[in-house]
Amino acid sequence: MIDKLMEKIKKTGAPVVVGLDPMLKYIPGQIQEKAFGEYGETLEGAGEAIWQYNKGIVDAVCDLIPAVKPQIAMYEQFGIEGLKAYCRTVDYCKEKGLVVIGDIKRGDIGSTSEAYAVGHLGRVRVGGSSFSGFGEDFATVNPYLGSDGVKPFIEVCKKEKKGIFVLVKTSNPSSGEFQDRLADGRPLYEWVGEKVAQWGEEAMGSAYSYVGAVVGATYPEMGAVLRRIMPRACILVPGYGAQGGTGRDLLPFFNEDGLGAIVNSSRGIIAAWQQEKYARFGPECYADASRQAVRDMINDIASALEGR
Amino acid sequence: MIDKLMEKIKKTGAPVVVGLDPMLKYIPGQIQEKAFGEYGETLEGAGEAIWQYNKGIVDAVCDLIPAVKPQIAMYEQFGIEGLKAYCRTVDYCKEKGLVVIGDIKRGDIGSTSEAYAVGHLGRVRVGGSSFSGFGEDFATVNPYLGSDGVKPFIEVCKKEKKGIFVLVKTSNPSSGEFQDRLADGRPLYEWVGEKVAQWGEEAMGSAYSYVGAVVGATYPEMGAVLRRIMPRACILVPGYGAQGGTGRDLLPFFNEDGLGAIVNSSRGIIAAWQQEKYARFGPECYADASRQAVRDMINDIASALEGR
Repeated sequence: MIDKLMEKIKKTGAPVVVGLDPMLKYIPGQIQEKAFGEYGETLEGAGEAIWQYNKGIVDAVCDLIPAVKPQIAMYEQFGIEGLKAYCRTVDYCKEKGLVVIGDIKRGDIGSTSEAYAVGHLGRVRVGGSSFSGFGEDFATVNPYLGSDGVKPFIEVCKKEKKGIFVLVKTSNPSSGEFQDRLADGRPLYEWVGEKVAQWGEEAMGSAYSYVGAVVGATYPEMGAVLRRIMPRACILVPGYGAQGGTGRDLLPFFNEDGLGAIVNSSRGIIAAWQQEKYARFGPECYADASRQAVRDMINDIASALEGR
Repeated sequence: MIDKLMEKIKKTGAPVVVGLDPMLKYIPGQIQEKAFGEYGETLEGAGEAIWQYNKGIVDAVCDLIPAVKPQIAMYEQFGIEGLKAYCRTVDYCKEKGLVVIGDIKRGDIGSTSEAYAVGHLGRVRVGGSSFSGFGEDFATVNPYLGSDGVKPFIEVCKKEKKGIFVLVKTSNPSSGEFQDRLADGRPLYEWVGEKVAQWGEEAMGSAYSYVGAVVGATYPEMGAVLRRIMPRACILVPGYGAQGGTGRDLLPFFNEDGLGAIVNSSRGIIAAWQQEKYARFGPECYADASRQAVRDMINDIASALEGR
């Protein structure tokens, strides 16, 4: 799957992932009205609104990008009905040929991590049969519990040819509270980065490993260091756009081959129609606004990469 | 809810939580056969088997204990159908008067953590209405992302009078890989413990805080240090029983008042019927085996506490 992701990045010329992190306040009135008209102002209605909204965006941008990253929390908040919308979104994106990165940030110990890995990336056995639970291609994983929390994911990845992105240095303002703590002279995120490189060695695709990393666009200097520590890890870079990262900030995350990083934007794309810059599209054409925002993001990154 | 938990611990004399972490291999044949007979060897069949198995255990032990801790991964691996069994289990345990600790180990940034908090501990707004998604009383939270990943949970806890247990030092063998790293002369878990104490100050129940901590029974010396660092935090202690912790190992986790800790056992209780010690019950009476295992666990801890 990491090879497929890299191929698709090359083919589209877009090291870009669209974060499908729907909030009801982003969803245009006409979609909400239709969904609530059909199902009432219920969890089911919310699930339907989210799904229709996502579908519009996916249809509008799927030829431009290699991958999407649905944030499961935004669905999970609506309980089972929200998670049904998550599953429909994952399935639909895969139908459209997109690589699906489940932003699930799971992580536990031994058999529990294995259960998450099986449910999201693998197949679970029931008697003589086996089933896919959520069926994403990649998942994000929290490393706080150490190797025996991460390795069960890697085992499933090797079996299923799927991948993970391990949280190394997250994009949020207080990420440094623990991640930047100097341990034996080096910040913790570097120690986590070393482990990512080590875990990744045993699960290599043709040029990049099945084991990638999450490093926030908001910390480009740390990105440069981590790029060197984990040369074979694809870096998933959140924090571009709405969180403040710019095209120029992204350069340290890429390798010399112009690959090795994939940049996420969520709100900046999916709620583009609410920005002044794209207001001309209006709520009816929200998906076209998203398409234009994707084009602008691709150009911004391409210019920055050309200019280095 | 922390006050309710403490009251129930006092009333039952049992600082004990039963981990409802079902695996199909723990479930007696007669339950599996009935569920698969009705729904086939499907995800739905697995969900039904899990639910019936849980119900039997809950009915057998609910008068002895204050709380249960379903591990969501064990349900999530079966996709939506598994999560339906999780919801049924949560609802049923609450009906039975048990405090429900959702072992979800979620944690993300800002609005995303808020979505998890709302979905699991609060109510999500849909138009003019609000709904409970999963409805647990407590949730476990991963601190790797720092304060802005944890505080949204605390905000929801304050509003709903619910609580969290933050992962500080986990019970697994490789937990030390990152958690024990010496940062500015102190292991990382102590820094996390300091934060737990600080976060907890703003969300106090009558004697204990809404903000608790997870510290593994497998690390009693670290438990003693963390007990001092977080005097007002209830410590959720996994790792007793199947993972190797004994009654004596638990003493450092308790305060002088005999409170302040709640000890989890999962496999040791729910799969007791598969142990030689409880083999006399047989698969038909698996729930009675669980009841006996709970009694033995309560006695083991009480003896240890008396003997100090």
